[in-house]
Amino acid sequence: MAGKKVIITGVPGVGKTTVVNEALKKLKEDGVEYQSINFGTFMFEVAKSEGIAQDRDQMRALDRTVQKRLQQLAAQAIAQIPGNVLIDTHASVKTPKGYLAGLPEWVLREIMPDIVVLVETDNDQILMRRLSDETRMRDKEGSRSIAEHQQFNRSIAAAYAMVTGCTIKIITNADFLLEQASQNLAETLR
Amino acid sequence: MAGKKVIITGVPGVGKTTVVNEALKKLKEDGVEYQSINFGTFMFEVAKSEGIAQDRDQMRALDRTVQKRLQQLAAQAIAQIPGNVLIDTHASVKTPKGYLAGLPEWVLREIMPDIVVLVETDNDQILMRRLSDETRMRDKEGSRSIAEHQQFNRSIAAAYAMVTGCTIKIITNADFLLEQASQNLAETLR
Amino acid sequence: MAGKKVIITGVPGVGKTTVVNEALKKLKEDGVEYQSINFGTFMFEVAKSEGIAQDRDQMRALDRTVQKRLQQLAAQAIAQIPGNVLIDTHASVKTPKGYLAGLPEWVLREIMPDIVVLVETDNDQILMRRLSDETRMRDKEGSRSIAEHQQFNRSIAAAYAMVTGCTIKIITNADFLLEQASQNLAETLR
Repeated sequence: MAGKKVIITGVPGVGKTTVVNEALKKLKEDGVEYQSINFGTFMFEVAKSEGIAQDRDQMRALDRTVQKRLQQLAAQAIAQIPGNVLIDTHASVKTPKGYLAGLPEWVLREIMPDIVVLVETDNDQILMRRLSDETRMRDKEGSRSIAEHQQFNRSIAAAYAMVTGCTIKIITNADFLLEQASQNLAETLR
Repeated sequence: MAGKKVIITGVPGVGKTTVVNEALKKLKEDGVEYQSINFGTFMFEVAKSEGIAQDRDQMRALDRTVQKRLQQLAAQAIAQIPGNVLIDTHASVKTPKGYLAGLPEWVLREIMPDIVVLVETDNDQILMRRLSDETRMRDKEGSRSIAEHQQFNRSIAAAYAMVTGCTIKIITNADFLLEQASQNLAETLR
Repeated sequence: MAGKKVIITGVPGVGKTTVVNEALKKLKEDGVEYQSINFGTFMFEVAKSEGIAQDRDQMRALDRTVQKRLQQLAAQAIAQIPGNVLIDTHASVKTPKGYLAGLPEWVLREIMPDIVVLVETDNDQILMRRLSDETRMRDKEGSRSIAEHQQFNRSIAAAYAMVTGCTIKIITNADFLLEQASQNLAETLR
């Protein structure tokens, strides 16, 4: 059987790496293996091998057309990897100019993932933190902006589902509930 | 004039069938006719006639490529139906692996609907139920998960609108307000 | 360097024009110029020059296929304009039949914008207005429906980002904070 391509995403600070590591450990015990790759790192390797960039700073300076071609080349290479592959990237990236699609159409159409996972913090927890926090203004902004980013990620993930036919799995990584989140991810990857 | 293709969706338990039946009754009185079809049933008929499946259990076991081809064949057949057609399906389907697009791109591009209707329960009602309920944890989860599913449906419907140019009509089926919901749907279908 | 194509959107009444004018004034002082066009007006000019419509009422009566062709022609013409262009339109339009994509795929693929800006009113302000208002039912409906429309705009903007690789910039135009909103827009356009 051909392997699964699963894309795993989450806003910075959500604890994605810990959840992934726990889930992969569980799966290994059951004999299910996944190769983990980071989309950004993978793209940089492609850029180096094509002589387009020597270090990661140069990556950011590339113009839009070159960047697009690189993304597509990386996606094509990922699509060729045999077996189960877990691809770490972002549903969307927050930049000073606004949210950028982590998986633009030309990447999605190459990878055609089976599942896109959104690891999220609980909005209720954000709210609790917001209500209880002493340094009010800063945290208030922070909480709202995490909620906004997570909502944007869900929206763009819905568009990803339409184009690829993949499922969108939302996994909440609540405080003290890492075990539950990693169990949930393991079942999704199985 | 060519007929309209309208897709009607709603999460399980929202009362979609009742709203549709009432709306179609009203329209019939005014001489407006719609042929109602269920996308899943229609797809199964296509599968039978193509010798791909004999019963609906076999449908679920089909591999992804075959399922995709079946969906496209069904959509092509629906596009050929003359007159007004009301297509009953889901904006998205909740599965153990996450939300699945009810109308992936390869279905949408064949049907090119005029309107996609989302029949929704009122989120305020979900909240009321949540606050008043005694068996707290279970209902809390339930209410949150309906709200999440409805929100995902709106997001994916937005993507459907971009690809097809259809309108997305949100119709709230509130308690005791069936008359209003069915009137609203009748006006949308007229 | 080729110019930027920026699309600016916002629900009616959000104060988009004021924010844009202030931002463009700031940019002019710094020597950054944008040509402002309104997508609807531009499309009408195309329709007139093609002999498809003489006045704007006729525009609304055009059938779906003609309208689609017109939108695409207008988008192609906009894509040819040299220098920075700011295109005023809607992320989605609220019609009696539901929300309509302001930027359907066939428009997006021609313009391939760099940025889509959503000028929004603050949902908290909507909530405040809703809680304090005396003429309860009307305003309640009004506030909910603005929030719903803005949410739909974010969702469809996410789909736009996937197709074009543009960024989606959310700018809040809060009461008494016009200066902040226009500053924010100016930095986005710079």
